[in-house]
Amino acid sequence: MNLLHPHTGLYTDLYELTMAQGHFFAGRHETRAVFDYFFRKNPFEGGFVIFAGLADLLEALQDFTYSAEDIEYLAAQGFKPEFLDWLRHFRFRGDVWAAREGEVVFPYAPIVRVEGTIVETQLVETLLLNLLNFESLIATKAARMRLVAGDRIIAEFGLRRAQGYGGMQATRAAIVGGADNTSNVLAGLHYGVPVTGTMAHAWVQSYGDELTAFRKFAEQYPERCILLVDTYDTLRSGIPNAITVARELEARGYRLFGIRLDSGDLAWLSKRARQMLDEAGLTYVKILASNQIDEYVIRSLREQQAPIDGFGVGTRLVTGHSSPALDGVYKLGEYDGKPRIKVSDNRKKITFPGRKMVVRYRNGEGKFFGDGIWIEGQQPTQRIIHPHEPEKQSLVADKPWEPLLHRVMAAGEPTEALPSPREAAAYARTRLADLPDEHKRFEFPHIYKVGLSEELFALQQHLLDDIKQR
Amino acid sequence: MNLLHPHTGLYTDLYELTMAQGHFFAGRHETRAVFDYFFRKNPFEGGFVIFAGLADLLEALQDFTYSAEDIEYLAAQGFKPEFLDWLRHFRFRGDVWAAREGEVVFPYAPIVRVEGTIVETQLVETLLLNLLNFESLIATKAARMRLVAGDRIIAEFGLRRAQGYGGMQATRAAIVGGADNTSNVLAGLHYGVPVTGTMAHAWVQSYGDELTAFRKFAEQYPERCILLVDTYDTLRSGIPNAITVARELEARGYRLFGIRLDSGDLAWLSKRARQMLDEAGLTYVKILASNQIDEYVIRSLREQQAPIDGFGVGTRLVTGHSSPALDGVYKLGEYDGKPRIKVSDNRKKITFPGRKMVVRYRNGEGKFFGDGIWIEGQQPTQRIIHPHEPEKQSLVADKPWEPLLHRVMAAGEPTEALPSPREAAAYARTRLADLPDEHKRFEFPHIYKVGLSEELFALQQHLLDDIKQR
Repeated sequence: MNLLHPHTGLYTDLYELTMAQGHFFAGRHETRAVFDYFFRKNPFEGGFVIFAGLADLLEALQDFTYSAEDIEYLAAQGFKPEFLDWLRHFRFRGDVWAAREGEVVFPYAPIVRVEGTIVETQLVETLLLNLLNFESLIATKAARMRLVAGDRIIAEFGLRRAQGYGGMQATRAAIVGGADNTSNVLAGLHYGVPVTGTMAHAWVQSYGDELTAFRKFAEQYPERCILLVDTYDTLRSGIPNAITVARELEARGYRLFGIRLDSGDLAWLSKRARQMLDEAGLTYVKILASNQIDEYVIRSLREQQAPIDGFGVGTRLVTGHSSPALDGVYKLGEYDGKPRIKVSDNRKKITFPGRKMVVRYRNGEGKFFGDGIWIEGQQPTQRIIHPHEPEKQSLVADKPWEPLLHRVMAAGEPTEALPSPREAAAYARTRLADLPDEHKRFEFPHIYKVGLSEELFALQQHLLDDIKQR
Repeated sequence: MNLLHPHTGLYTDLYELTMAQGHFFAGRHETRAVFDYFFRKNPFEGGFVIFAGLADLLEALQDFTYSAEDIEYLAAQGFKPEFLDWLRHFRFRGDVWAAREGEVVFPYAPIVRVEGTIVETQLVETLLLNLLNFESLIATKAARMRLVAGDRIIAEFGLRRAQGYGGMQATRAAIVGGADNTSNVLAGLHYGVPVTGTMAHAWVQSYGDELTAFRKFAEQYPERCILLVDTYDTLRSGIPNAITVARELEARGYRLFGIRLDSGDLAWLSKRARQMLDEAGLTYVKILASNQIDEYVIRSLREQQAPIDGFGVGTRLVTGHSSPALDGVYKLGEYDGKPRIKVSDNRKKITFPGRKMVVRYRNGEGKFFGDGIWIEGQQPTQRIIHPHEPEKQSLVADKPWEPLLHRVMAAGEPTEALPSPREAAAYARTRLADLPDEHKRFEFPHIYKVGLSEELFALQQHLLDDIKQR
């Protein structure tokens, strides 16, 4: 199920098509090129990113074609018949190398490499950036919540505040990052992720009388009944009525699953609610909380020992609230077998030339030490060199390493079945466990080392000197 | 073209379906209900919102059905056969009253009212909130940019940083808010909005030699050629090469359309670029700028008299960067002909009961004075009363007024052709012109008056007293 079908090829910036036509008429459209996807800054002032979006990307790439309607539209925009005849039969037949979904990744290290003709590698740029930037952003936000939530439930409830149909990708990415389930039913169907929900204020309001509303709900949903207790007055009406209904459920042989707090001071209310439930002998009834929750609120609630068993998180998760975009870019590394570079007055924006691979080193304790960006096929490097402060170098010759990029698509076909969102989530958990804690804290996290191999550094210098001389 | 087809009915929170089944088995599913859509806080610390998303919503509502695959999925989730047999034939047949797209709207005033059975009005909640919240957010952001950009070009270039497939709605809303055009080709096809673009660094990099790259582009696109000048060195290489190509275009009888600056200090570079172009006799060549532009950057560039003719705006527009969600809600106002209320310790969260209309008053100069929330069908009110500080009241008896809500859907069918995004943009412009300037400034804007009619206030008080007595 690809929502863009059969228009996937049009989900792009116009200039990708303009350049494609340009290459076509210059007779260069079969020339080979290599592009890298990487980002420059961790979002949320954090120390890492969880890579996500790969499965959605590969699905869309296999469907990256132009329908008759698309071709007609492009003709009306002035694209030329000869190019459009060719585009009509276009499909993506490139190779894709990528980190695993759920991988912990860092600024400057290429996490996806796309190889193919200049036209196919360029045409997919916008789609690739759109999906990978957004899903990685939201997976990262969810992972930060998971870090502080421990084993409490995290339910993604954000669809109503998600950015349009991006709600689909938001849900998927939230699961990759560590949410347990979602309220988004279409995501449940599309991605096979677990769906969940409670009740709305409107249910209670429609009955007018809260106790009746609770009873009617419990009658029909005795097995997983969660009562929303703040429509009128949480402590004086909502919880007492929930207790009444819980006892009635017990009489029928059921147990009330939980109550949901959706307003007021969640720390104070949850303590009072726990006390009232416990005094009624209902120690098994869970307390769920929602309302503007993010990783800082979860941490604060835990510090206050609020007896909350699960969090419904919406807006601040699905929009990546404090940093709503990841700044990932897609840069040309090689054209026609020759390394290419983009220069800038800002050293941080000079690109890394060539066809590259990324390896991860571990330290003496077996934890992640740093990532090296190598030239594909080179011998192991002695040291890695900071990407824009070359005086900073680290010896890595004796450190165990593993490659981070794997070929996931060959000639436009997936090479393997990709992990499901929950499998990617399990992988993210193991990888985060291997990341030292100082990179995971929220305030001024320690910067993870990413550096160029000596060989790549030399190649970059060589190309820079070349440009200076011209 | 509805991207969710044929699964639109599943783009919802699970609890909407849970409650629908609940109402169904309680035999209440044909009972009439009235819901209101409104928000409580202007985004971006601003003074207004531009309402958008209505056309997308009405299109989706007409397609709000459940496919065989959807029904099968819901069966696997435990929904019951009798309900699913009914849901299989479900379609939305309610009435929708709404403000015009492009209307300037304010906190607390209901801008959409949905009437129908409790099930149909409840089931569409999530979809309605998703589309209206997001498109109104982005239209507002674009309108803020338009306020400071004057008649300079605003091109929406954000697809690569948009939140997944929400890029579609982002583009549409940007046009409603005042962007001139977009790079998003699928939005061009889907919404009939104008598409535009320049070239990427990769085009220049693929040639290695910048002058050759510019020449090859100008050869094929002589009529609307925009050259990206910062791949190697803006002032020493990019602009001199652009000037060479501009002269070659002149020799062929064409004029270079523009250059694009994408890095560095845009104020300083644009002044130097203008000077270099003018000295070469190329006063007609436009200067376009991109790179992290928002309304504050545009304002600053204009204050510095930067000679920039157009802005390419991406991330900060399409994500609503500083406030990435509008807090719109959907609340039950009436059930089975009886007014309903939701109470809260927070006076700001108490809902307005009943079936309501909204009117707009004008002041002595013919500008917008304030909005009144009335009970539908009531006589004009003498005064409007602040929604949660009832001691604040305004006399409105002598002020001219107009209704803001119009019936746009009857029994599930649109009652009229809706305006296109550009028509909605034109409407937004005229409405913003009627809004006094003090509501449009970015810093501490004057708060626009929205109040309840005396009749509505009395009804709300009556219901609150009722609940207190219980």
